[in-house]
Amino acid sequence: MSQSVVIDEPELRHECGVCGVFGHAEAANLTYLGLYAQQHRGQEAAGVTSCDGTLFHTHRGMGRVADVFGPQDIARLEGEHAIGHVRYSTSGASIERNAQPLVIDYQHGGLAMAHNGNLVNAAHLRRYLERQGSIFQTDMDTEVIIHLVARAPGASVEDRLARALREVKGAYTLVALTESRLLGVRDPLGFRPLVLGVIDGAYVLASETCALDLIGADFIRDISPGEMVVISDAGIESYFPFEAQPRRMCVFEYMYFARPDSTLDGINVYQARKAIGRELAREHPVEADVVVPVPDSGVAAAMGYAEESGLPLELGLIRNHYVGRTFIEPQQEIRHFGVKVKLNAVTSVLKGRRVILVDDSIVRGTTSAKIVGMVKASGASEVHMRISAPPTIGPCHYGIDTPDRDQLIAANRTLEGIRDNLGCESLGYLTLEGLYRGMGGRGPGYCDACFSDDYPVTPEEGTPQMSLLREDA
Amino acid sequence: MSQSVVIDEPELRHECGVCGVFGHAEAANLTYLGLYAQQHRGQEAAGVTSCDGTLFHTHRGMGRVADVFGPQDIARLEGEHAIGHVRYSTSGASIERNAQPLVIDYQHGGLAMAHNGNLVNAAHLRRYLERQGSIFQTDMDTEVIIHLVARAPGASVEDRLARALREVKGAYTLVALTESRLLGVRDPLGFRPLVLGVIDGAYVLASETCALDLIGADFIRDISPGEMVVISDAGIESYFPFEAQPRRMCVFEYMYFARPDSTLDGINVYQARKAIGRELAREHPVEADVVVPVPDSGVAAAMGYAEESGLPLELGLIRNHYVGRTFIEPQQEIRHFGVKVKLNAVTSVLKGRRVILVDDSIVRGTTSAKIVGMVKASGASEVHMRISAPPTIGPCHYGIDTPDRDQLIAANRTLEGIRDNLGCESLGYLTLEGLYRGMGGRGPGYCDACFSDDYPVTPEEGTPQMSLLREDA
Amino acid sequence: MSQSVVIDEPELRHECGVCGVFGHAEAANLTYLGLYAQQHRGQEAAGVTSCDGTLFHTHRGMGRVADVFGPQDIARLEGEHAIGHVRYSTSGASIERNAQPLVIDYQHGGLAMAHNGNLVNAAHLRRYLERQGSIFQTDMDTEVIIHLVARAPGASVEDRLARALREVKGAYTLVALTESRLLGVRDPLGFRPLVLGVIDGAYVLASETCALDLIGADFIRDISPGEMVVISDAGIESYFPFEAQPRRMCVFEYMYFARPDSTLDGINVYQARKAIGRELAREHPVEADVVVPVPDSGVAAAMGYAEESGLPLELGLIRNHYVGRTFIEPQQEIRHFGVKVKLNAVTSVLKGRRVILVDDSIVRGTTSAKIVGMVKASGASEVHMRISAPPTIGPCHYGIDTPDRDQLIAANRTLEGIRDNLGCESLGYLTLEGLYRGMGGRGPGYCDACFSDDYPVTPEEGTPQMSLLREDA
Amino acid sequence: MSQSVVIDEPELRHECGVCGVFGHAEAANLTYLGLYAQQHRGQEAAGVTSCDGTLFHTHRGMGRVADVFGPQDIARLEGEHAIGHVRYSTSGASIERNAQPLVIDYQHGGLAMAHNGNLVNAAHLRRYLERQGSIFQTDMDTEVIIHLVARAPGASVEDRLARALREVKGAYTLVALTESRLLGVRDPLGFRPLVLGVIDGAYVLASETCALDLIGADFIRDISPGEMVVISDAGIESYFPFEAQPRRMCVFEYMYFARPDSTLDGINVYQARKAIGRELAREHPVEADVVVPVPDSGVAAAMGYAEESGLPLELGLIRNHYVGRTFIEPQQEIRHFGVKVKLNAVTSVLKGRRVILVDDSIVRGTTSAKIVGMVKASGASEVHMRISAPPTIGPCHYGIDTPDRDQLIAANRTLEGIRDNLGCESLGYLTLEGLYRGMGGRGPGYCDACFSDDYPVTPEEGTPQMSLLREDA
Repeated sequence: MSQSVVIDEPELRHECGVCGVFGHAEAANLTYLGLYAQQHRGQEAAGVTSCDGTLFHTHRGMGRVADVFGPQDIARLEGEHAIGHVRYSTSGASIERNAQPLVIDYQHGGLAMAHNGNLVNAAHLRRYLERQGSIFQTDMDTEVIIHLVARAPGASVEDRLARALREVKGAYTLVALTESRLLGVRDPLGFRPLVLGVIDGAYVLASETCALDLIGADFIRDISPGEMVVISDAGIESYFPFEAQPRRMCVFEYMYFARPDSTLDGINVYQARKAIGRELAREHPVEADVVVPVPDSGVAAAMGYAEESGLPLELGLIRNHYVGRTFIEPQQEIRHFGVKVKLNAVTSVLKGRRVILVDDSIVRGTTSAKIVGMVKASGASEVHMRISAPPTIGPCHYGIDTPDRDQLIAANRTLEGIRDNLGCESLGYLTLEGLYRGMGGRGPGYCDACFSDDYPVTPEEGTPQMSLLREDA
Repeated sequence: MSQSVVIDEPELRHECGVCGVFGHAEAANLTYLGLYAQQHRGQEAAGVTSCDGTLFHTHRGMGRVADVFGPQDIARLEGEHAIGHVRYSTSGASIERNAQPLVIDYQHGGLAMAHNGNLVNAAHLRRYLERQGSIFQTDMDTEVIIHLVARAPGASVEDRLARALREVKGAYTLVALTESRLLGVRDPLGFRPLVLGVIDGAYVLASETCALDLIGADFIRDISPGEMVVISDAGIESYFPFEAQPRRMCVFEYMYFARPDSTLDGINVYQARKAIGRELAREHPVEADVVVPVPDSGVAAAMGYAEESGLPLELGLIRNHYVGRTFIEPQQEIRHFGVKVKLNAVTSVLKGRRVILVDDSIVRGTTSAKIVGMVKASGASEVHMRISAPPTIGPCHYGIDTPDRDQLIAANRTLEGIRDNLGCESLGYLTLEGLYRGMGGRGPGYCDACFSDDYPVTPEEGTPQMSLLREDA
Repeated sequence: MSQSVVIDEPELRHECGVCGVFGHAEAANLTYLGLYAQQHRGQEAAGVTSCDGTLFHTHRGMGRVADVFGPQDIARLEGEHAIGHVRYSTSGASIERNAQPLVIDYQHGGLAMAHNGNLVNAAHLRRYLERQGSIFQTDMDTEVIIHLVARAPGASVEDRLARALREVKGAYTLVALTESRLLGVRDPLGFRPLVLGVIDGAYVLASETCALDLIGADFIRDISPGEMVVISDAGIESYFPFEAQPRRMCVFEYMYFARPDSTLDGINVYQARKAIGRELAREHPVEADVVVPVPDSGVAAAMGYAEESGLPLELGLIRNHYVGRTFIEPQQEIRHFGVKVKLNAVTSVLKGRRVILVDDSIVRGTTSAKIVGMVKASGASEVHMRISAPPTIGPCHYGIDTPDRDQLIAANRTLEGIRDNLGCESLGYLTLEGLYRGMGGRGPGYCDACFSDDYPVTPEEGTPQMSLLREDA
Repeated sequence: MSQSVVIDEPELRHECGVCGVFGHAEAANLTYLGLYAQQHRGQEAAGVTSCDGTLFHTHRGMGRVADVFGPQDIARLEGEHAIGHVRYSTSGASIERNAQPLVIDYQHGGLAMAHNGNLVNAAHLRRYLERQGSIFQTDMDTEVIIHLVARAPGASVEDRLARALREVKGAYTLVALTESRLLGVRDPLGFRPLVLGVIDGAYVLASETCALDLIGADFIRDISPGEMVVISDAGIESYFPFEAQPRRMCVFEYMYFARPDSTLDGINVYQARKAIGRELAREHPVEADVVVPVPDSGVAAAMGYAEESGLPLELGLIRNHYVGRTFIEPQQEIRHFGVKVKLNAVTSVLKGRRVILVDDSIVRGTTSAKIVGMVKASGASEVHMRISAPPTIGPCHYGIDTPDRDQLIAANRTLEGIRDNLGCESLGYLTLEGLYRGMGGRGPGYCDACFSDDYPVTPEEGTPQMSLLREDA
């Protein structure tokens, strides 16, 4: 029978986005807009918690920001302070229970938290906490952090939060809200971005600058790795409660996740992608007629490649931006539609041409193979695949939803084997050196574990199942 | 502008219902049907948690059982064990977060719990637990109990649950589910009912026998006050882990809550109501032409009154059973429609007649006054209100959603004052003695605190706000 | 697999209800409330069309009135005139396309119409109209009538409507709305009721008086068979545009459909039912211990039976009023739950007793057999079924959704055969004579075709399929 | 209070798309996919009607294809033939009643029709038909055509359809389905595209070739202006039932509507846009640093402009593809968010640069002014707006939803006035000659009435309101 098919999820890699506003009459509405601008960081669920100084008001739901919130939902989120969260799309059933912000009562009052990242010792901490009598109602790392906060000694919430975070390992960018404070923290290695802005005298925290742009807030600065900012009626204070470590910001934020118009830790995403594309052209030139990006993520790198190579850029693949999360596949169809629903080839651009296809990465290889096939079917005489990143050989343990190593084609095949699999004439990956040349140098410190196998924080071994609980979509 | 009006909520008094099935291939479906039969105990929310021996599967939602569950929801609730819950309607916004069963991970695995009743020391215990580092994500007493279980020493879940329950005071009938056990507990005073049945060799627990009837289970016995039953593959075991106390089952279960076809602790609800109506006729005879019940809850008592008095019973008030939770009131309408939407008078029965109106209670008095007005407007020459219960002078602290004492008309006015307020010719309440004559004697032990001010368990004084958290409907 | 089962539909017999208000600032809201009160006449769909003097505004939907309309829907229905409709539940898929009122543009402006009844020559007229070039977008008789109006000559809408209606045969009570007029028509035989009331100087039309009661309108009079009323700013005018015929109002309206608190053509429904029950007792006395109604429709007749027989009335069957339209049946369950979900027996009333069960009719016999079985399973020593109507031997062609003759048990079996099928000790149907004694005489003229096979209007022979169109639920 | 705001609708110009499949076991699923690929042609509503040889099955709904259809909806659309429709977004409330396909019963059986275009004499024909006794239940031109078919003489549906279409004037591309035939018609001037393909031996009709590409159908040919194809079990037949006229295909299909990967009447859309951009560079060169497209529609023209001018192309404006139809605007916000929600500027690209902004058209001018403002706010030293089309001076009467002439900035202001309004340093529109050079010559014949005021079919004068009917969203 006909069935609904999830579109091309295996190749998607999402994570989360956060936002917070302190001291604005329309805190919830601005937070909602901040999430709206950061929708690309997670489409599974969205939520906002506001605080009116005493009570915490929460609205969360499955789906995109525009679907989860109506005007009345915003109106009910009273108070001048708010935080919000967009959540990434997991495989399988979506889980309402895991929507954020997480909001609790504890001995010091109310506390709301939204978190982007992944802890590598969450299961260990969870078992430890359970032995102390803690109960868990979700699968989220955030619940682990909140339990640690609730048990931490300390006179202030910032002190308790700092003590709690000294126990955790991994990646976390988080915003938290109490009756009187908005806190923002970036882990010591600074895996995920966090920026500070101001609008009408009210401070704003967000994962990316594009959120500030939408609400009209002025960018103040990036929150530093290892920094905790505490925003209250008294203004903003900055702490560095962790042992200082070299920054290891996720380089893939620039290459794939972040919106091109965002500027993270001083580097504009679009410019970085173009520069990387230029490096790719230098490392892997090839005689060809035309440079064609795999839209949307490959466009900027392809522009850089075309510029550097002097070859013309053509939009030989067109993306259908109206696709939903799923479509209904015909029964007798054995070929997967996944790619065709999203991309279509422009025959007049491709026919008889030697095509350089530029994409940002190859994960399992199945989607790339279909794209190469589609381009060839449109008459391309040669297809030269160019990837604006090194081979993806390891999974991410710091918040990106990647498949296991045994499903990563580059971890399991030679370059020639991958090329064979894709069915293209040549294949070139950017080197790590080329990548960093494009990024303007390794200097600032990046995590590139998925390319280099150099994991800044060792993941916990043999982690058992986190939770026995399953909830209906 | 026109607005949606909640129908007559102030007079409604709901609580909750529970159900559990152990060791049946269709555990979730039977539990769902058990809730369906007990829908009268709570229409705000419904939920079922099943366990397949390892994982717990949960489906919960706001609204009636028939609206919350579809065939696929049931199908996803895998496993041979399940528990379920229907929740009462609170005033104000309904809260998804508070839907039951509550399901957690803790150091001993998974645990699901559904609870009917109210603890009088919940806020105290909550503050105590918070000081120990516990966090709370809901407003429910159930979460307090589960925290106590998670912190309790003890080799078995029954031991831990018993230790936890020794800390709580108040009314609780609960069902709980682990990977291998279904537990049922009735508090030492036995405020709320709990019955045991069997179907196809599988044990069933339910608040009322009508749930057993629907699924075709055979009634085995009532769970006793202070009893804990532990159902596992090894069969059923019974414990009495609490200090023995005289039973104090809620007498109002018989008078209002329970379905007339249920038999609780050996007494059939319908028969009890009729007998009470007969006592009412003996205590408050009056010269009149016709006995008219306020449907539906007053019907059985009115039948008893008519039988005893020899006066004819007539259905002079007709109930519209198709009403929803709300209706849209005309703008210019100053009279409240609340009663008219649900009840309408049959003029040909009432016109020129001396009418004895039989109802089960008067809470605020507003609804009763409207009903008397409606009967008079239909031409009744006299209205004699007869209540098949003593005056309601105190709120319930054991799980029934009643208004505060200052809103209870009988706590604040004389009999004559109430009669004036209702606008009827005479008013007669049943005495407590008459009530117990109807019930067949005080012997078994009842809680009648709302009539007698004799509270079996002292409510905590000066309880502060339980929670700072508010969630959107 | 578990599946959703429609509850007991085969025995349900619904039709439709209409309402109209002219010249009231809250016309749409009052019309909505009039439908709310008449929800028992149809739960499949509901709709209201208002007119602001120029434009027609419509809101229609599948489901109950309370579910279809929200405050904003009412607010959008601008204007001082409105009509509305509740639709009966057909077997199989519900069809949005067939929701009423039907609203059209035609050469004389706009026209909205809502219709209760059934035409016996609709298919013939439809083919005739199609041959004239008409197109049909629904399956409704109403569309046939509207096409006839659109083609009729005549200077006024009342003239055109009268000409149109002279072409149709069968049962119709209809309300229609133009920019300046509200029309109400009852067919010459007066199969279905229609009443006129007034509120705040505005006229109201409704199928039953209970609609007037809810909105607080005063009853003026019944619209007569064959009468057309035309309500405009100039007041109300009355016409009798059809050849006079003896009234043949549906006697089953009194026995089953109408709300007990309604009074139709001068006879109160509840009183009629009681009187019929008394006749039943006279015709079919039996030695027994208790009279038990099948709720809700059998209650009044059972009261009459008990009164006349001197036997005690007991509520030995309890109805669950919280059932939805469907429930999910366990997989391994071969017995149908249909009846058990709605009714449950009170063992303490039935055990060891000789029970007289009173119901209003037997259609297929399957439900009745299950009820008898349930009563016997509860220990009744004898069950004597008494039906407050003659045997149902023919289908209705005038608007009631009954099964075909070959599915009517009384059309296909002897009395003894039916009794065998039900499994009861005795079975007694009321005679037609008894029925009319209870109704106060045959004088006013009734249609009793389903009992007597005397069809006042001959149904069209060999009617082909009305429509080729199918729409998704 | 916060309110939901429709995003930037005034500048959007949508129309409709159609699809049809004949003789395929998965006709409905393929049709659904054909609509999915053509979602850009209309997001307001979608529908599919299938025919199993006798019965017609329809599923329609408001919203995008992915939201309207689930697997069960497709499964219910039985039969080997199907047609479908996506509908454009009108201003104001969406209207369920107007969803297509329109399906009717008439004297010759069933007939379904889906239509892209606009008739200029619809109101006239409607009044004529009403005078003949026709009734109208929708506002759609399609209903006018169907009425004409129903009244037309002729032995075959193709004959009747041809006769009907000889009465109408304006733009229409339509697909129609009977029990045994799929018809496709393109009006004599060929305003809107229609293509023919084949898959597994089954014929497919669609507005654009991208629909064929997605389902894997092979392109056969474009349907010619004035051509009617009749597809049946006997194969395909082609008729030219209208007087031959020179083609006048909508040139704006190439410039804005159609997907870049589609090829219409032999010209690929992407290639045409690039060529037009090159012409624009030739006509309006300017000294500048960078060429920036307004995404998405301006990208291809900007690429052509950059190529021709030798200036670098940069993505200085980033589009958020995750926007919904609406967002919730902050209360105190006086600036409209419309543009910011969809577009954001990349400061590092724009700062201090002289920017050539390339867009496809200016309608009211408000959006363009906001975009110029955004680019300047990001630090651009100069903004030179270049429009890859002539000034839009007239509304479209042939199916495109454009504002009235008095709202078209180019119809009411001088070039200098528009430039002032936009606030840019210079403004250049492409000439009509330049446009046609880009298109490869005027030869094939285009409609460019919105640029030239040369309307191929004179619109009806003084058209009154089509309908008095309003339906709730």
